[in-house]
Amino acid sequence: MSSLLVFQSDFGIADGAVSAMYGVAYSVSPNLTICDLTHEIPQYNIWEASYRLIQTVQYWPSNTVFVSVVDPGVGSTRRSIAVKTEKGHFIITPDNGTLTHIKRFSRIVEARELDENTNRLPNSGESYTFYGRDIYAYTGARLAAGLITFEEIGPSLNVEDVVELHVTEATKEGDVIQGTVDILDVRFGSLWTNISKNLFKELGVNYGERVEIAIINDTREVYRNIIKYARSFADVHVGEPLIYVNSLEYMAVAINQGSFSKAYNVQTGSQWKISIRRAPKIIYE
Amino acid sequence: MSSLLVFQSDFGIADGAVSAMYGVAYSVSPNLTICDLTHEIPQYNIWEASYRLIQTVQYWPSNTVFVSVVDPGVGSTRRSIAVKTEKGHFIITPDNGTLTHIKRFSRIVEARELDENTNRLPNSGESYTFYGRDIYAYTGARLAAGLITFEEIGPSLNVEDVVELHVTEATKEGDVIQGTVDILDVRFGSLWTNISKNLFKELGVNYGERVEIAIINDTREVYRNIIKYARSFADVHVGEPLIYVNSLEYMAVAINQGSFSKAYNVQTGSQWKISIRRAPKIIYE
Amino acid sequence: MSSLLVFQSDFGIADGAVSAMYGVAYSVSPNLTICDLTHEIPQYNIWEASYRLIQTVQYWPSNTVFVSVVDPGVGSTRRSIAVKTEKGHFIITPDNGTLTHIKRFSRIVEARELDENTNRLPNSGESYTFYGRDIYAYTGARLAAGLITFEEIGPSLNVEDVVELHVTEATKEGDVIQGTVDILDVRFGSLWTNISKNLFKELGVNYGERVEIAIINDTREVYRNIIKYARSFADVHVGEPLIYVNSLEYMAVAINQGSFSKAYNVQTGSQWKISIRRAPKIIYE
Repeated sequence: MSSLLVFQSDFGIADGAVSAMYGVAYSVSPNLTICDLTHEIPQYNIWEASYRLIQTVQYWPSNTVFVSVVDPGVGSTRRSIAVKTEKGHFIITPDNGTLTHIKRFSRIVEARELDENTNRLPNSGESYTFYGRDIYAYTGARLAAGLITFEEIGPSLNVEDVVELHVTEATKEGDVIQGTVDILDVRFGSLWTNISKNLFKELGVNYGERVEIAIINDTREVYRNIIKYARSFADVHVGEPLIYVNSLEYMAVAINQGSFSKAYNVQTGSQWKISIRRAPKIIYE
Repeated sequence: MSSLLVFQSDFGIADGAVSAMYGVAYSVSPNLTICDLTHEIPQYNIWEASYRLIQTVQYWPSNTVFVSVVDPGVGSTRRSIAVKTEKGHFIITPDNGTLTHIKRFSRIVEARELDENTNRLPNSGESYTFYGRDIYAYTGARLAAGLITFEEIGPSLNVEDVVELHVTEATKEGDVIQGTVDILDVRFGSLWTNISKNLFKELGVNYGERVEIAIINDTREVYRNIIKYARSFADVHVGEPLIYVNSLEYMAVAINQGSFSKAYNVQTGSQWKISIRRAPKIIYE
Repeated sequence: MSSLLVFQSDFGIADGAVSAMYGVAYSVSPNLTICDLTHEIPQYNIWEASYRLIQTVQYWPSNTVFVSVVDPGVGSTRRSIAVKTEKGHFIITPDNGTLTHIKRFSRIVEARELDENTNRLPNSGESYTFYGRDIYAYTGARLAAGLITFEEIGPSLNVEDVVELHVTEATKEGDVIQGTVDILDVRFGSLWTNISKNLFKELGVNYGERVEIAIINDTREVYRNIIKYARSFADVHVGEPLIYVNSLEYMAVAINQGSFSKAYNVQTGSQWKISIRRAPKIIYE
């Protein structure tokens, strides 16, 4: 294995939870290299956990082991799973939808149900199990350190059975693309949509040309404007909106050096719809 | 030594203070593995620093060196110390109560006063000493790297003399347990009490049965309700309160997928009292 | 090379951007040791990025490679550069003023323009370039791992041409020193000024003596008081203001266990002026 172990959770870094996970992992093997994806996933937000995985996993070496713990159903009958992706990354997580994007866009080639009896920190869990520490960090560390094989995590699962959240697909009808605001670029307030670069290209709009976008929250329109399709932020003025291709090759909407999300109070989810069409020609007579 | 060095402070991570500590430590030895417990301890909150240590130190390999810098008395005559615990962990810190919980629950076997003349970053401190960087990170790194022995940190101290904060013990009188709210699970808003699982068991309450709890701020009751003793969050409905055994084997009070602390504005400290008793039987006539 | 790679940005740690940079760097070489300076630089705040570098770089081993990405002009014609300091540290960054303090106080001995065609993550950038990940992290990792030499980063530049932000110098006229509030010690709310310890010494004030300070925002005085020149916080009462020499050997103003910045709503920048003079003698008659 690569000895690389990457943690993601909604625990924050203000208390000792993440550090206890690190300690358990280094107790398994001091030769691991342990990193964080993020621990600032909003509490119980499985969708965002799934998105952050598809955004980053591909950039890590194959054999890197990811442990993601966003787990609103902790203690319920939800199972724990480990999967292997097409590119050879491993992810251990509660089977609650955290793998939605990885399953759709990165292909899972093998899945196993984590056997929590054999894969558990010794002497843990008599009266309480902190899953992140006692099950997930412990097992992820053992896999990354090569102390167990992927097969030893537990019995094989049908990949099709890995739980997925509902995903809304962007569509094109006539000359209008309809999509949703999937997630925010948190710090800069850009809107990342579910409209791929390839779908957008069907509009035949070139860099520097303009599109009309509308953003609708359920039934209420919260934004409509004509904005430039820019190669990068520097192609528009400071404070000017733009649409661009983001680092995942999907369309994103932003304000150069401002926060689009804060400016128009736009949030994420399937009720936040966005439509894009070629800007109408304005003819002065 | 293990080469593992773990930092804790109230410095936050927004400026360069923590990074300067890392740089000093890696300058001592590039072979160290350096991690954070947390740098989000509320400013000058020695109690919380002490609590985060007892919560995490035990999960790290023996010989791990911890450096904790929450130091409202910096520059005063408070001394700096290093201790060794029963399980072979080392902690370097100002002697201001940061070791309260470690001393009580994890047993300190040796203590030394840090000699700040011999254990100091070369050329530091002519006009200013940044203790975290120039004394603590430097000395912790040298100990973790095996460049100095524990004995070389300074003269031996009587373990009894290590400073402790006042700790309120939970008590049981008749069929009522009285305790305090010790600390929050920051991100999820659970209340962690000073009532141990063993003391709670004396009430003879089984999983799924109910207890009456009251929370009093000084003299004002802020919460009274009958809630379920649950094995985990999934045993109650979303939004329902519960009492459970936390990861330290103490009793905690929470709301499933909510924040108990925010819901009832409960804070921590000895004035935040909690009482627990078996729920009264309700007989409908 | 040292194999040490240190990242700084204004990306925050809530989404996957920083983790993608780590992944790219570990893909270049799993033997790197990667750390953060901070990712909490306020968005687009080049000045603060520059300041955090001068505050920390010197404490890291020589040959450490720093990558700083605060880049309001991303996508514009601003070039990317790499520099080597007198003490053998390397810094890769957009050439936008991020090296202002390093250039002034730490001396740059060599500068090179980063060739973005040869130094780019393979297969990146067809429709979008995430510079932090695809150019800076990738190139920093290759330099730290010894896979490229400093010369291979690109053509040599004149050090004088490295972009600098405007810096206001503190001055002494008569018995009054005039300076500005350069930056905050974020967590503790201290004001760090551009008045060096050496300039302050010209006032002939000794520890324990008092000075009169005034803080002016443009033309409006927001604070005037007589405060103690203290060796450390413990030399004044809790809640009392003080002036002291900070960890960079410049003068700083604080409140012991309080936040000076919050108390008087003081911010940073060239319009925030501070003047210091020896306190007048008060003679009771």
